[in-house]
Amino acid sequence: MRIIDEIHKEDIDSMIVLNPKNIAYLSGFNPSSFSVLILKDEPLLLTSKMDFEDANLNTKVPIEEFKSLDKIKDYLKGTVGIEKNITLGIYKKLKISSMFEVKMTDAVERLRRIKTMDEVQNIKKAVGIAENAINAVEFDSRRSENEIAAQIEYNMRIMGSKKASFDTIVASGSRSSLPHAEVSDNSLEMPLVIDWGATYNNYCSDTTRTLIETEKQEEIFEIVLEAQKSAIDVIKPGIKASYVDKVARNVIEEYGYGDSFIHSTGHGVGLEVHEGPSLAKSETIKLEKDMVVTVEPGIYLKGEFGVRIEDMVLIKNRGKVLNKIKKKIEL
Amino acid sequence: MRIIDEIHKEDIDSMIVLNPKNIAYLSGFNPSSFSVLILKDEPLLLTSKMDFEDANLNTKVPIEEFKSLDKIKDYLKGTVGIEKNITLGIYKKLKISSMFEVKMTDAVERLRRIKTMDEVQNIKKAVGIAENAINAVEFDSRRSENEIAAQIEYNMRIMGSKKASFDTIVASGSRSSLPHAEVSDNSLEMPLVIDWGATYNNYCSDTTRTLIETEKQEEIFEIVLEAQKSAIDVIKPGIKASYVDKVARNVIEEYGYGDSFIHSTGHGVGLEVHEGPSLAKSETIKLEKDMVVTVEPGIYLKGEFGVRIEDMVLIKNRGKVLNKIKKKIEL
Repeated sequence: MRIIDEIHKEDIDSMIVLNPKNIAYLSGFNPSSFSVLILKDEPLLLTSKMDFEDANLNTKVPIEEFKSLDKIKDYLKGTVGIEKNITLGIYKKLKISSMFEVKMTDAVERLRRIKTMDEVQNIKKAVGIAENAINAVEFDSRRSENEIAAQIEYNMRIMGSKKASFDTIVASGSRSSLPHAEVSDNSLEMPLVIDWGATYNNYCSDTTRTLIETEKQEEIFEIVLEAQKSAIDVIKPGIKASYVDKVARNVIEEYGYGDSFIHSTGHGVGLEVHEGPSLAKSETIKLEKDMVVTVEPGIYLKGEFGVRIEDMVLIKNRGKVLNKIKKKIEL
Repeated sequence: MRIIDEIHKEDIDSMIVLNPKNIAYLSGFNPSSFSVLILKDEPLLLTSKMDFEDANLNTKVPIEEFKSLDKIKDYLKGTVGIEKNITLGIYKKLKISSMFEVKMTDAVERLRRIKTMDEVQNIKKAVGIAENAINAVEFDSRRSENEIAAQIEYNMRIMGSKKASFDTIVASGSRSSLPHAEVSDNSLEMPLVIDWGATYNNYCSDTTRTLIETEKQEEIFEIVLEAQKSAIDVIKPGIKASYVDKVARNVIEEYGYGDSFIHSTGHGVGLEVHEGPSLAKSETIKLEKDMVVTVEPGIYLKGEFGVRIEDMVLIKNRGKVLNKIKKKIEL
């Protein structure tokens, strides 16, 4: 396992992996209940009785039944790595800090940021399913936000996505000024922000399109689009992730809408719809080849409307947009 | 706020609430990004710029913009309560343990276990939507597991559920022996385990039915049903949650299938589809009036098939089953 070399670089001898997505990434088994992957020269997976058979079908890592947190220490050796998102409750119950030297590490997340060819294929497939699903939706103004969301999710499933990658957003009229609006039963009004994603082999897609109508909406749309294009244009290995955010933000600020761009420019996508790196001011890392990120600037005019445009970008020598769907969807 | 009295009982003067479901429970605002609810005599909600407007529409708690973890300590006083599921990474970044006495508490989860009348109404509504949704599905053996799952989820949405309460399980033929099988493209075969749930105002439902065909399947079905009935019959305030598990398990053991009942008997349901109490051997608490739990024994014959029957039970003087759908669904 590549992860073993990775933790050894940090002088970690064994590691406790609890995050189900990290376990899925490393072992191929997607836990549905509390499971523990012990990393050391001979890795070991501990799962509940309930998940045992499913694990057996999906991983080559040796499996034992998970009995109790107390027992985990018997499998550890040397300096023990733990994930940053281990809960304090479980950490205390493990009682390992008195017996081992313990180090927080994001070694698994670091590996997950760089996608293999297989992972990129899965992501591309998820993007394609999501786009086909929305192309098959009829945007009739008598339909409600909720009906559109239901239709998108149904289409994605039928087209091969086992689940949506997150709760579909269909935000219409003034509700489009809330970046994460909950779907309502309101009838469709313009503009219409749709933020949706499929999964394929557990890999996610994440795309946003905004349908517009008035001249004012068109004006804002063009600014957001310019910001997005400028940001995508500067993407390449070696630049700071925060720089991409800065470029998008600069464009929107130049037009005087800086205060209305109320979130970061993007995020990594993989087994989770939000993972590293973040395209945000606070992000410290640099972009690398084979990362997959979203680029999604937006302008939100409180009480009026909002516009967001989001595409997924694979980083090669330059940023390569994975989406094929047009930026402007016509009714 | 009742929670303030609750934390005072534990000699906690202020508390940091980070779990989004706990924030939703206490404030009415359902965070879509990192948010912090500070509990003290004057509670305060800290949210991202992106969520600010949405929070404003949904809570009466005063709101400020979340700036940094460092700042949180300025709002705290006295002994500080924290949730058990706070992540170690965030806990360390807060750097509060050197400045305050810190206590882990499940005060919010304790309140959440006991449902108000409004909460019970929401749960009942979710149960009703889920049942109507499945009643409108056509179980044609030419359809796939995935098509059935897609149809159930579409129906739930159209009938008023903003999202499924968890990934719908449709496990057919030998796949029914995996309690948490992922939906496949296999055509329907008997038996057919369907485990599905709706949400209403963010409250969840969770129900399982198994469609059967052969005599052997019927035999197993009757044992599981007897276990479920026996367990529901003993439910009342004051008994140990673990006792309900014991009663169900005893029935299945008597018939010689003890090793094939590979999960616990049930769990609480509310804003989360899995919350306290657990109807499991390891659970230490007693049942109380106005808890809502599932009762879901199952028998899983490896490589052959599985049967699970799950209903939701509201605890009054006795256990009151909230489901109306028949235990046996005919094709």
